[in-house]
Amino acid sequence: MPKDSYLVGLIGSGIGPSLSPALHEREGDRQGLRLLYRLIDIDPLGVPPEAVGDLVRAARDLGFDGLNITHPCKQLVIEHLDALAPQAEALGAVNTVVFEDGRAVGHNTDVTGFAASFARGLPDAPLERVVQLGAGGAGAAVAHATLTLGAERVTVVDALPERAAALADSLNRAFGRGRADAATPDRQARLLAHADGIVHATPTGMAAHPGLPLPAELLHPGLWVAEVVYRPLETELLRTARALGCATLDGGGMAAFQAADAFRLFTGREPDAARMLADLTALAGAVGARN
Amino acid sequence: MPKDSYLVGLIGSGIGPSLSPALHEREGDRQGLRLLYRLIDIDPLGVPPEAVGDLVRAARDLGFDGLNITHPCKQLVIEHLDALAPQAEALGAVNTVVFEDGRAVGHNTDVTGFAASFARGLPDAPLERVVQLGAGGAGAAVAHATLTLGAERVTVVDALPERAAALADSLNRAFGRGRADAATPDRQARLLAHADGIVHATPTGMAAHPGLPLPAELLHPGLWVAEVVYRPLETELLRTARALGCATLDGGGMAAFQAADAFRLFTGREPDAARMLADLTALAGAVGARN
Repeated sequence: MPKDSYLVGLIGSGIGPSLSPALHEREGDRQGLRLLYRLIDIDPLGVPPEAVGDLVRAARDLGFDGLNITHPCKQLVIEHLDALAPQAEALGAVNTVVFEDGRAVGHNTDVTGFAASFARGLPDAPLERVVQLGAGGAGAAVAHATLTLGAERVTVVDALPERAAALADSLNRAFGRGRADAATPDRQARLLAHADGIVHATPTGMAAHPGLPLPAELLHPGLWVAEVVYRPLETELLRTARALGCATLDGGGMAAFQAADAFRLFTGREPDAARMLADLTALAGAVGARN
Repeated sequence: MPKDSYLVGLIGSGIGPSLSPALHEREGDRQGLRLLYRLIDIDPLGVPPEAVGDLVRAARDLGFDGLNITHPCKQLVIEHLDALAPQAEALGAVNTVVFEDGRAVGHNTDVTGFAASFARGLPDAPLERVVQLGAGGAGAAVAHATLTLGAERVTVVDALPERAAALADSLNRAFGRGRADAATPDRQARLLAHADGIVHATPTGMAAHPGLPLPAELLHPGLWVAEVVYRPLETELLRTARALGCATLDGGGMAAFQAADAFRLFTGREPDAARMLADLTALAGAVGARN
């Protein structure tokens, strides 16, 4: 019997180091599928982010089953799709496109991936007052996830006040008035003194941006700390928080579970998310050791 | 270690029943490659044959390693390529495109595939006077192959006199004056009385076009008979010729060896052509039995 075959890919900028091909192909191998994951990087192609529509149409015509979409195309792709799943619609960002009978449907598995990771890794975390650092694309996705999980109030802190305010506004529109507000970093100390936990969604802590995203003295043992950065898995923030006794969640779960959710959408098969997380941990660890 | 992966496909019209995906993917599997072969049929896409240039560029951009090209795009694709291999240049038709460092290079493995099949299946066949039935695209490829193998003279017979004459002219330009001429079917009797063998390159004998491509009484035991049709492998022409005691060659070798040559071009790895022929025989037999 011929194997069921799936052709998928990732469109974005600077995606050469992505772990997505390995995550998807390894899970496909375990399930006995013929699955091939191609990187479609707009930089070497010399096309602007706005070309994402042409690339999506071309992928559909050439027999791709679906695509992941990343920076800087997650919003730009929307106008080229035929339908949006609810999380993608609410967030206004798509990281997964599935081709079904010639139609292109947008999903957001960053939201579902972070939610799954949080529910698994910090199942008993109190969610009355959550402070989120970072209001960029990843920040929008994880704030949606945190509110979906039942957080009463998320305060979005960003050095760009307009960006924080815009995200808080859109969260209030999606989840109801009073669920979100915005703050600048100078208010962090007071916010964190009364918070249940921190979601960190800025690039600080990545290999290229080492360091802590906030003064260490603002951390205290009463906080849980959830990280979006996953390369390295052990960021300075997590190390510092763990030393204080905080419950922590690294970024590997979100990275693995967004891939698992995309795999399910692409193939219609149930991924073994725990095995994908083990792969992610091994791969990100190997990368971290190299950098 | 991640497997070496290859993404290839076929552009053409009405290619749903193609055996190429199975031939390439099975050989890829045996070699431990992650190889995926996609059918890109212009009919359901609703695009004209002239869209082949856009499709080839899109495939290159989306990470395809190469493409096979079939009817009605084998000539149309040429203007969109960066370079041609010698057989493709001489024939003016491309059935295989390889992407190398962003360049698209055209090859023709119909020519090399038929030559390999003939050399293997009829190694001692005399080649002084060859009569070829059919001057279409397949006919052009196999006439090039027959002359490359050393045929002294090929007479091309076609019900369309202009088409036969045009092919003979182009063969004489490529191989030297006097190597080819054209004839209409009414001259077949005299030609075959003095010929060494027949190459059959019309659709007659395919499941949709049953029957014999020439009157049975023109066949005689002194002829070898080489067939291009491979679905079914056993055409009425081959059955009739074999009953007379003619040496025969079915179309499976050309079909398998063109795929093997394309596999080598796509992957840089040496295919096991005999195993690909065994696959072709099994697949074409299974299809024949179903039809």
